[in-house]
Amino acid sequence: MAAIVTIRHARRDDVGVIVRMLADDPLGHARERIEDPLPPAYFRAFEAAESASYIQLVVAEEGGAVVGCLQLCILPGLSSQGAWRALIEDVRVATHCRSRGIGEQLVQWAVAQARARGCKLVELFTHNTRIDAQRFYKRLGFQPSHVGMTLRF
Amino acid sequence: MAAIVTIRHARRDDVGVIVRMLADDPLGHARERIEDPLPPAYFRAFEAAESASYIQLVVAEEGGAVVGCLQLCILPGLSSQGAWRALIEDVRVATHCRSRGIGEQLVQWAVAQARARGCKLVELFTHNTRIDAQRFYKRLGFQPSHVGMTLRF
Repeated sequence: MAAIVTIRHARRDDVGVIVRMLADDPLGHARERIEDPLPPAYFRAFEAAESASYIQLVVAEEGGAVVGCLQLCILPGLSSQGAWRALIEDVRVATHCRSRGIGEQLVQWAVAQARARGCKLVELFTHNTRIDAQRFYKRLGFQPSHVGMTLRF
Repeated sequence: MAAIVTIRHARRDDVGVIVRMLADDPLGHARERIEDPLPPAYFRAFEAAESASYIQLVVAEEGGAVVGCLQLCILPGLSSQGAWRALIEDVRVATHCRSRGIGEQLVQWAVAQARARGCKLVELFTHNTRIDAQRFYKRLGFQPSHVGMTLRF
């Protein structure tokens, strides 16, 4: 059954469920630390994102439960005739809620925001191993035009 | 001969030479508009980047001439234990100055900035056709770990 979700800005009390979604994933599992209480770095990151006018950290809510998340950055740049660009990051849908259109509603919300803010380009990185994600983004009109290169410290 | 460059923040009077570097490229050529005067959108983008605390738009200067540019964004995020991440964009070296280590000095400057600002990750997009750029970034320690997906309006 297709989900009807509300997309709203994340609140501090959503941080726990967002982090659990980030961790509930083969790649994220090794990178996150699910403890009670959560490491304070997650709350500091939430506060930094919340106070940044160029970032929107949002969640998808269904029946009062948070079932997805996405971070959207709107960034200026000189290239493409001084076009603003949007960067989508940290897209997750809760495991038990997948294949019901929630990710699509999140990404389409972000694309609509990017358009409304005058962006000419939306960019995102998806790990080489996330073949399903790449198919999903292609279906929404994204092209696998670039190599996403990363350096981790 | 290896170049010794000064890396400094871009100024408004650098916009023309930056845009010419962005345009002097098979991909950039079709995207930029080199006119005299330059379209005002470039200056608006410069002002937006200059006033954003999370962005550093820098140039490499050699003997008083601007010979390269790079934009660095430092962004918060919840993933990877609330790690700050850096996004490198719009890296260019003037055609007549290539293969002299200028791009490397720009990128190493950005990586050092990212470390100094506490980032755990540096990300960048490079077009699938830029095989030389991919080799260059691999030499500097970047992994081609992701697919960079884009949607242009």
